[in-house]
Amino acid sequence: MLPVALDAMGGDKAPGEVVAGAQRAVAELGVPVVLVGPSAQLAPLAGELPVLEAGEVIAMDEDPAQGVRRKKDSSLVRAAEAVRDGKASAMVSAGNTGATMASALLRMGRIRGVSRPAIATPIPVPGSTPTILLDAGANAECQPEWLVQFAQMGSVYARERFGVAEPRVGLLSIGEEAAKGTPLVKETHQLLASAPGVRFVGNVEGRDIMSTDVDVVVTDGFTGNVVLKTMEGTVRRLIEALLTAFGSSPQAEAAAQQLLPALTPLYQSMDPDTYGGAMLLGVDGVCIISHGSSSARAILNAIAVAREMVEADLVGRLRAAVAQGA
Amino acid sequence: MLPVALDAMGGDKAPGEVVAGAQRAVAELGVPVVLVGPSAQLAPLAGELPVLEAGEVIAMDEDPAQGVRRKKDSSLVRAAEAVRDGKASAMVSAGNTGATMASALLRMGRIRGVSRPAIATPIPVPGSTPTILLDAGANAECQPEWLVQFAQMGSVYARERFGVAEPRVGLLSIGEEAAKGTPLVKETHQLLASAPGVRFVGNVEGRDIMSTDVDVVVTDGFTGNVVLKTMEGTVRRLIEALLTAFGSSPQAEAAAQQLLPALTPLYQSMDPDTYGGAMLLGVDGVCIISHGSSSARAILNAIAVAREMVEADLVGRLRAAVAQGA
Repeated sequence: MLPVALDAMGGDKAPGEVVAGAQRAVAELGVPVVLVGPSAQLAPLAGELPVLEAGEVIAMDEDPAQGVRRKKDSSLVRAAEAVRDGKASAMVSAGNTGATMASALLRMGRIRGVSRPAIATPIPVPGSTPTILLDAGANAECQPEWLVQFAQMGSVYARERFGVAEPRVGLLSIGEEAAKGTPLVKETHQLLASAPGVRFVGNVEGRDIMSTDVDVVVTDGFTGNVVLKTMEGTVRRLIEALLTAFGSSPQAEAAAQQLLPALTPLYQSMDPDTYGGAMLLGVDGVCIISHGSSSARAILNAIAVAREMVEADLVGRLRAAVAQGA
Repeated sequence: MLPVALDAMGGDKAPGEVVAGAQRAVAELGVPVVLVGPSAQLAPLAGELPVLEAGEVIAMDEDPAQGVRRKKDSSLVRAAEAVRDGKASAMVSAGNTGATMASALLRMGRIRGVSRPAIATPIPVPGSTPTILLDAGANAECQPEWLVQFAQMGSVYARERFGVAEPRVGLLSIGEEAAKGTPLVKETHQLLASAPGVRFVGNVEGRDIMSTDVDVVVTDGFTGNVVLKTMEGTVRRLIEALLTAFGSSPQAEAAAQQLLPALTPLYQSMDPDTYGGAMLLGVDGVCIISHGSSSARAILNAIAVAREMVEADLVGRLRAAVAQGA
């Protein structure tokens, strides 16, 4: 396969952890990777990995639209161009999320018929496949028709990535009743009830996202992003509070040691690094958006997901699903 | 003080647990309570407690507006009337949230100058005072000016109820930058920056709600309700997953036993029953909305909060804060 274009400069731990993740992907998974970034800076780290030169970097806190417009030689823009030009099979970045979206959208373009791309994020569900939440932040304001496309694309993604044969799609609201919620929710509810390619199970609430009752949860990008960060924050506070309790006395510490074998799998299943990040669905190419704090392991997993989605021809399947729904 | 009017028929565990909570409030706190509901049904449970007759009950899943309009002799409507008529100092219900709001709004009316009442819910923060989240579901769609009033009222509430001298108020968004978010958020941000009676610390994200960085988080009722239920769901799933891990082997079980003294305070601090429910801010009387699943302990705590808010003249202070901001 064509190499995965990895934004070597994206993320809080770039380029060190990012390049380390690429090296593990090559060694452990046999996936070809091309690092994108300033070759002078990457040379000492790259080893055998090829480097695609990009002289600029869009910072994590830089304005996304301005960054992409002004920095045409940035690692993000070059990575997206490599996919567009058929030099790479996919792009992966743990950098500025807005700039990653803008680069992918402007350079790869949208899949024909897609109104807006959406960020699809797997939400860990203890003991089960994750729930796909979308849009997790690409579009702060949405139209009902866009949410229907998100439902169609999210269903394809849940099927191809997590093997859910007929994904159940829920619409995020503040009650199960079709009459509850904002005008956006009410109108979307009506459209989803008869949308092709969507197994709509009705409105769901915040507490259902991390449950086994639903596989795909559709919402606007404002609500989705708030929900995602609320979950991350809640999990983190609870883990911190647990660790404080575990360290509160020598007895507690000893008991906690005994529990490690039972707690480690749970901890890992809740760790966002496990799923290697979110995917931008609707652009004409595979684009994986990793967490800003990605470790080498997270990058490894993101590259693995990129390969899997390329091999599954996810973009072709999304195209078909959206065309069917048009 | 005047008795607290308790909707004896509201909640999944009514009337048993609700009446038990009232009896504890009288015995342990010395707060006078009047049960509101069908006296024939309550007589065997009430003991020494006075009963205010109300022949009807609005069910948990009944349409709130219809329920309040049609059931003029319901326990909820009668409880709100008791406050209006100066026969009770406050109302408490664990019943249908929408109907509780509608009863309070229609019978007590709004505080002069308040555009819309909001549900203010304390969010547990491990090791600290809770964060007040509002609106947690009263108004699915909001105007910027309403959110400013929510900020003013939430600040008064954080001060009177949790003793936070100068509550820091955050506006829930998808990034700290003032330019991010929906038009509602952007416009509210501008208004909050110069709003009297509000110590505005800027936009906050979902992950900040359960942190010690902010005391009051303001948002529209759709987002607030989704966030609240997302947190509840996340905490519940994690606790379930922990209990599963604790029971996964005899060794783990024994170790978990050892950890109980360290974990119990954490568990209690995360339990919604601890705070006795949310408060409807902006109506002309004290109205406490408890969780539908309230235990006797939750009812006891809700009655304690009601007394505290009556004694602090919360309604008078809210009136002053809103008048200052007008």
